[in-house]
Amino acid sequence: MELSDIRKEIDTIDEQLLPLFMKRMDCAKKVAEVKKRDGTPVFNPVREQEILDRISAKAGEYGGAARIVYNTIMSESRALQHSLLGAGKDLRQRISAAPKAPRRTTNVACLGGAGSYSHDVLQALYPQAEPSFFSRFSDIFRCVEQRQADLAVIPVENSSAGSVSEVYGLLMQYCFSIIAAKTLGVHHCLASRTGRIADIRCVRSKDIALMQCSQRLATLQLPLSEISSTSAAAELAEKDVGIAAVCSESAAQQHGLKILEPDIQNADNNATRFVVISKEMCIPDDAQKISLCFNVAHTTGSLNSVLSRFAAAGMNLTKIESRPIEGKDFEYDFYLDFTGNVHDPKVLELLCSLEDELPRFHFLGNYCEMK
Amino acid sequence: MELSDIRKEIDTIDEQLLPLFMKRMDCAKKVAEVKKRDGTPVFNPVREQEILDRISAKAGEYGGAARIVYNTIMSESRALQHSLLGAGKDLRQRISAAPKAPRRTTNVACLGGAGSYSHDVLQALYPQAEPSFFSRFSDIFRCVEQRQADLAVIPVENSSAGSVSEVYGLLMQYCFSIIAAKTLGVHHCLASRTGRIADIRCVRSKDIALMQCSQRLATLQLPLSEISSTSAAAELAEKDVGIAAVCSESAAQQHGLKILEPDIQNADNNATRFVVISKEMCIPDDAQKISLCFNVAHTTGSLNSVLSRFAAAGMNLTKIESRPIEGKDFEYDFYLDFTGNVHDPKVLELLCSLEDELPRFHFLGNYCEMK
Repeated sequence: MELSDIRKEIDTIDEQLLPLFMKRMDCAKKVAEVKKRDGTPVFNPVREQEILDRISAKAGEYGGAARIVYNTIMSESRALQHSLLGAGKDLRQRISAAPKAPRRTTNVACLGGAGSYSHDVLQALYPQAEPSFFSRFSDIFRCVEQRQADLAVIPVENSSAGSVSEVYGLLMQYCFSIIAAKTLGVHHCLASRTGRIADIRCVRSKDIALMQCSQRLATLQLPLSEISSTSAAAELAEKDVGIAAVCSESAAQQHGLKILEPDIQNADNNATRFVVISKEMCIPDDAQKISLCFNVAHTTGSLNSVLSRFAAAGMNLTKIESRPIEGKDFEYDFYLDFTGNVHDPKVLELLCSLEDELPRFHFLGNYCEMK
Repeated sequence: MELSDIRKEIDTIDEQLLPLFMKRMDCAKKVAEVKKRDGTPVFNPVREQEILDRISAKAGEYGGAARIVYNTIMSESRALQHSLLGAGKDLRQRISAAPKAPRRTTNVACLGGAGSYSHDVLQALYPQAEPSFFSRFSDIFRCVEQRQADLAVIPVENSSAGSVSEVYGLLMQYCFSIIAAKTLGVHHCLASRTGRIADIRCVRSKDIALMQCSQRLATLQLPLSEISSTSAAAELAEKDVGIAAVCSESAAQQHGLKILEPDIQNADNNATRFVVISKEMCIPDDAQKISLCFNVAHTTGSLNSVLSRFAAAGMNLTKIESRPIEGKDFEYDFYLDFTGNVHDPKVLELLCSLEDELPRFHFLGNYCEMK
């Protein structure tokens, strides 16, 4: 037998299988009508479990595979019902009421001091804004919460050091809107007051900056010590000739330091991604990135069936992060970034159906990803 | 029309749909035979794309849903072919050759010094071992690489502060085996030499410990400063009356400190999960946790189709982490933990098929999760 013969057989099967699948989706429509009339909820875990058990028992050796295929079919059927039932009214309203740009950008909070990477991004995005500097992420979030700042610029991930765990925790805790994202190429230099290697007793910087330069720093064989930001390290180096800072060239300049060596980061294309957070949602017309978080039941295939819905709406996953829920024993929330725009009806319908369906679902924003 | 009528209709459709799915899986078996004879690779992205495009065009309004269901069907079909072709020979051999326990546990590396949380876990797991202390995670991994330590105990995640990003980066870089995991309830205290709050100028600890105690520390209104470990903080507090450490009670004792306040962590059930890493794989019979990492193509539904395979094998996802690949612009590797045991044939077959199919797939271990 040849591959082409078997493929013909498969195509013949598909010609019968697809219409059945479509008839099944037609039934989902009818179910939605009845559920609308009777006020019955869309998700019926008992009925779904019965179907899965029956199907996988009948499928014999293909039981596991059949279960997963049916899981996907039923998840798509639920999505259709949610959309017909007009799910997520609140979210729909919040999205349609969102302005295209932030109402106020007078005061913007960020980490570190003048010359920090966060400050560079802040100046690029909001050149007219008054910056407020903080040494801890938790203080920045509190400041936005109390409306002492209109917005805040926050680093979320570095191409070599990974996610800033603390920030993802705070994003999921406060559920502020993300209104923009920008990736900044990060070039660290080693700088000190005298610019002489012999004077240096200790190298200081933010933990994540030390990681990004780990290869070059290892060859120096000097003690490393963490501090809250790269600009704080430059400030210390200004006061103490024995301290070298790993910081941006602009921070070195700001504090009158001499550069011992530029570009000491491990990877040439070292880059950090920042997001801008706000208490008020705003959505530009050309937004192409969506962030959200949710909690799914800790059962086989639960995350998978949610992810399949995003794939069905043509949304690409660009980031996934699982976070333990504080105070619970390793129960997880998920944070995800996708490509997409809420003005695409498929995307909006998906978000609205998930808001109805998932516990702790939060749409965090739809924004532009700037380079 | 009543719900029960529509459900009968759905059940009738399923009675026709399931046999077709099973016939399609029978075809996958025949395809495997031909591919074995001809040496053709299992994955044929062009043919799969053609099918997906044809199916979703034919499905009209259900196009997105049909695409995702077919994506799942084809992924299950590939899984079957891989298993029939005896995929993953190397991995199968490595797993069957793995001893049940580590050959040597003489020297075990960990972070911090005597009394650090890592040291507590090390003593609980390997009471006879000689500990080697390090102040940086990268040095611990290097030490295992150079066989200066047989094993190392590494914190990977805290229930309130989240993942230790740096460690996940190192786990994926070195691809050592994970041979055990243990979760430790973490109780931080505030301690200083005099035990008098009035003497304290600054509170020091590891960044993640400061985060875990953020609520209580905020009310103290004292400057906070990061250091490489909680035990290093206790050591500093021993030398300087102006410094208070956030550390374990055992570290406070070790350094002759007085406890100003016990249990200052935000959550009562604050816990940290540690893993034990080794250059040599070992797999206990009652192993119930599997770790792995891989890279998937950055296209719609790619991660989803891999996750569906785990679900089909009855494996529960307990952790997922996406990591940028260093030196590439935000390309991602995934790190995952699942429940499962490699002596379950379904689990072993899945791992073997993924080793053949996915770029940069690494099975990191199968181990016991201890409380």
